[in-house]
Amino acid sequence: MSNGDVFVGEMIGTAILILFGAGVCAAVTLRYSKARASGWVVIAFGWGFGVLAGAYTAAPLSGGHLNPAVTLGIAVDTGEWGQVWVYVLGQFVGAMLGAVLCYLTYFAQFRANVRETGTTEGTADEPVPTLGVFATIPEIRNPVANLMTEIIATVGLVLPVLAFGLTEGLGESGTLVLIVALLVVGIGLSLGGPTGYAINPARDLGPRIVHSFLPIPDKGTSDWGYAWIPVAGPLIGGTLAGLVYNAAF
Amino acid sequence: MSNGDVFVGEMIGTAILILFGAGVCAAVTLRYSKARASGWVVIAFGWGFGVLAGAYTAAPLSGGHLNPAVTLGIAVDTGEWGQVWVYVLGQFVGAMLGAVLCYLTYFAQFRANVRETGTTEGTADEPVPTLGVFATIPEIRNPVANLMTEIIATVGLVLPVLAFGLTEGLGESGTLVLIVALLVVGIGLSLGGPTGYAINPARDLGPRIVHSFLPIPDKGTSDWGYAWIPVAGPLIGGTLAGLVYNAAF
Amino acid sequence: MSNGDVFVGEMIGTAILILFGAGVCAAVTLRYSKARASGWVVIAFGWGFGVLAGAYTAAPLSGGHLNPAVTLGIAVDTGEWGQVWVYVLGQFVGAMLGAVLCYLTYFAQFRANVRETGTTEGTADEPVPTLGVFATIPEIRNPVANLMTEIIATVGLVLPVLAFGLTEGLGESGTLVLIVALLVVGIGLSLGGPTGYAINPARDLGPRIVHSFLPIPDKGTSDWGYAWIPVAGPLIGGTLAGLVYNAAF
Amino acid sequence: MSNGDVFVGEMIGTAILILFGAGVCAAVTLRYSKARASGWVVIAFGWGFGVLAGAYTAAPLSGGHLNPAVTLGIAVDTGEWGQVWVYVLGQFVGAMLGAVLCYLTYFAQFRANVRETGTTEGTADEPVPTLGVFATIPEIRNPVANLMTEIIATVGLVLPVLAFGLTEGLGESGTLVLIVALLVVGIGLSLGGPTGYAINPARDLGPRIVHSFLPIPDKGTSDWGYAWIPVAGPLIGGTLAGLVYNAAF
Repeated sequence: MSNGDVFVGEMIGTAILILFGAGVCAAVTLRYSKARASGWVVIAFGWGFGVLAGAYTAAPLSGGHLNPAVTLGIAVDTGEWGQVWVYVLGQFVGAMLGAVLCYLTYFAQFRANVRETGTTEGTADEPVPTLGVFATIPEIRNPVANLMTEIIATVGLVLPVLAFGLTEGLGESGTLVLIVALLVVGIGLSLGGPTGYAINPARDLGPRIVHSFLPIPDKGTSDWGYAWIPVAGPLIGGTLAGLVYNAAF
Repeated sequence: MSNGDVFVGEMIGTAILILFGAGVCAAVTLRYSKARASGWVVIAFGWGFGVLAGAYTAAPLSGGHLNPAVTLGIAVDTGEWGQVWVYVLGQFVGAMLGAVLCYLTYFAQFRANVRETGTTEGTADEPVPTLGVFATIPEIRNPVANLMTEIIATVGLVLPVLAFGLTEGLGESGTLVLIVALLVVGIGLSLGGPTGYAINPARDLGPRIVHSFLPIPDKGTSDWGYAWIPVAGPLIGGTLAGLVYNAAF
Repeated sequence: MSNGDVFVGEMIGTAILILFGAGVCAAVTLRYSKARASGWVVIAFGWGFGVLAGAYTAAPLSGGHLNPAVTLGIAVDTGEWGQVWVYVLGQFVGAMLGAVLCYLTYFAQFRANVRETGTTEGTADEPVPTLGVFATIPEIRNPVANLMTEIIATVGLVLPVLAFGLTEGLGESGTLVLIVALLVVGIGLSLGGPTGYAINPARDLGPRIVHSFLPIPDKGTSDWGYAWIPVAGPLIGGTLAGLVYNAAF
Repeated sequence: MSNGDVFVGEMIGTAILILFGAGVCAAVTLRYSKARASGWVVIAFGWGFGVLAGAYTAAPLSGGHLNPAVTLGIAVDTGEWGQVWVYVLGQFVGAMLGAVLCYLTYFAQFRANVRETGTTEGTADEPVPTLGVFATIPEIRNPVANLMTEIIATVGLVLPVLAFGLTEGLGESGTLVLIVALLVVGIGLSLGGPTGYAINPARDLGPRIVHSFLPIPDKGTSDWGYAWIPVAGPLIGGTLAGLVYNAAF
């Protein structure tokens, strides 16, 4: 695949992933959204079907990694590092583009996210912290534990992704991405509780940068003190998954 | 495919789509429904599996577009416009037929949707606005923002649909429609919060027309002032998706 | 397929369907169940995955109809009536067997379904009506409307099932039953609100008979006055679907 | 397949299964988890997608049983017992490894599971019993009924798994594991209410052993009096399923 195809594929695919993923966080958390407070099952399926939408779209151009941790795990396994920088560049540009598209989709909701007084219909008065739409926030702030959670959850993503390609009739058929999407739903349901499962440096850092620039009223902090964990954890996890895969399979 | 097959396929398929889609809105919102207040996840999966049911049924006859925005996106991409009018006609007739079938399925519920006094079991006293069963209603009424939401959400539908056909083993196999159905679930979960995701002119305008004629007690407004947005937004979005697809793939 | 294979396949498959389907109703409604009050989405997916489990199990022996309305629709379409009685017999015996298995699975819950006094932990005091585990109960009792709902919902099942076989790569592959299972999830989500979607005479009448005999304390009525509707409606719907399919495809 | 491949495959696959399965129980029950109290649908899909992740990963090495009851059912059916001990050994080691990984993933949550006084934000004051993350606990303690529930639920797993291999286009393709994963979701939704559906001796006993050793504050009992039922029930159920399958198919 040419560098151009890889860049465009990863950019479009990751933009779709983040549009859906940040979108479902907006849907569940922002005021004046029909899906408000619809629960964790909606979050997990929203992100998983974002993978489905983005990865199938990117597949013909770039294979649809959409995640530097996946690209890294494959490079560790195969030893081919030549296009890694193109993948990662496309992923970060796409993630930032997707975050902007999410902002535009929920434009009226973000504009309405201000303190309200004198409402008569009992809506919440306080603005919602908006960082959670764009980036992950741990429930308990504990760098060692948070990093460990992100490492294990990323191994839980990348090791199966590497192994899936070996299953007869899966790697060659169109169902591979479907299985990966449901795997991501499962990671969200099972391993997302402590940190919100970044498991993807581009997914977290790209939208966090966008959040810090967007003109959202009462948007709250971009929490740069935590930003290194959802980058380092997935990169360590992707590397570990590549090594374990090489040893075991 | 002959004009007759296309018309019949799109009509039956879109009727099934709207029967399921309007049906799930009725199920979740109307009084005396077993699924009442069962949440956004039910709405999103109900519409998605309506796509699954309708598109697989229509596939052998017409390919199963069920949506003028999809038909438009394909026409922009391929340059073949000859049967577009047959597709769109079948879609609108089918959407109206499906809305009537939904009305008949929930006939007793619609009839019971009147002000009740002196009930002893604590059911809600006020009739439910019934337009939400048939057509979309924005949470925040802002034409520019609402149009933008519908455009982005429709690109999020049509661009992947066009690209999915390129994935090896997907386009030729029976799993393509399954993936599209799950994509529609994802759009609902992630991008449906602001406007209720029409993303389909026939899905919104057809049932809205039916709503304005049906003899539903206390049915409330058909909200014609908003009706142009879920038509224009998806048409713009479908065109954009066709152009982006042509440029990138 | 031999009569013996058909009978055994339909019996085992329908027993599994009803074990899962009645099981999920027990799970959601009975006291002292971990899934109590977990909502309509659980009901709909539980029944759908019951179809998946039962139909894939029965498929090698009988094709996995599990439903007289499906058998009838196929017979109307193909004109082959010779084994219809074997299918239907297996389905009814299996449905009754599945209802007994569900009773045994939830044995302790059914035994505990009695009036409790002096509880200190605030559990519900009144026994739950148990018919809803075994058979359908309309929310609004209106024979004409209830029959109409069951007819339309059954057409929404059988017409797609007949058409799915035409989709290239679906009928011959193992994904056909998966699609039908998700279709049944969709019918539950969208069309189950008014009557609880029997859409299958064996599914309703078989377990209702079992309910009338089982020694469940405080089990309540078996509601024989309603029992003809979930038999007649699906049979009419299955016939209609066969006729529409023959005319349109 | 060599003994080494079988052991490694089952160990890694079962570790992933338990990481996801115990993980989703932690996610739903522990304090300071984003998925807290998100309901039974999350539990059931979390375990099912754990099967998907673990079994696809293990498939190229060992076929991906991940469950002594499945291994036993296959051995009863085929009469091949030579590698049973390797499968079971890998499954138990993997289950214990997965339980430790779950503990590490939710490390901060387990550490915070202590009595809190003087909190101002209304979080629950009492620590959560942690055994439910690792092993099953019946809602009503009744050995005969609990054993019956586990036997029937395991037959509902193993009999379909054995039969699925016969469906044309399923056994050879990559969708077999997907269907089994959704089957496990269905068992959870439908048959998990009374006992929490162990249906797998390794899934219950392995993590229970780990729970008894882990340094979790206020962890509560490991409930050894119940531990034989989720071992004996699944083994009886797996044997029964193998016998029924042999007789019927």
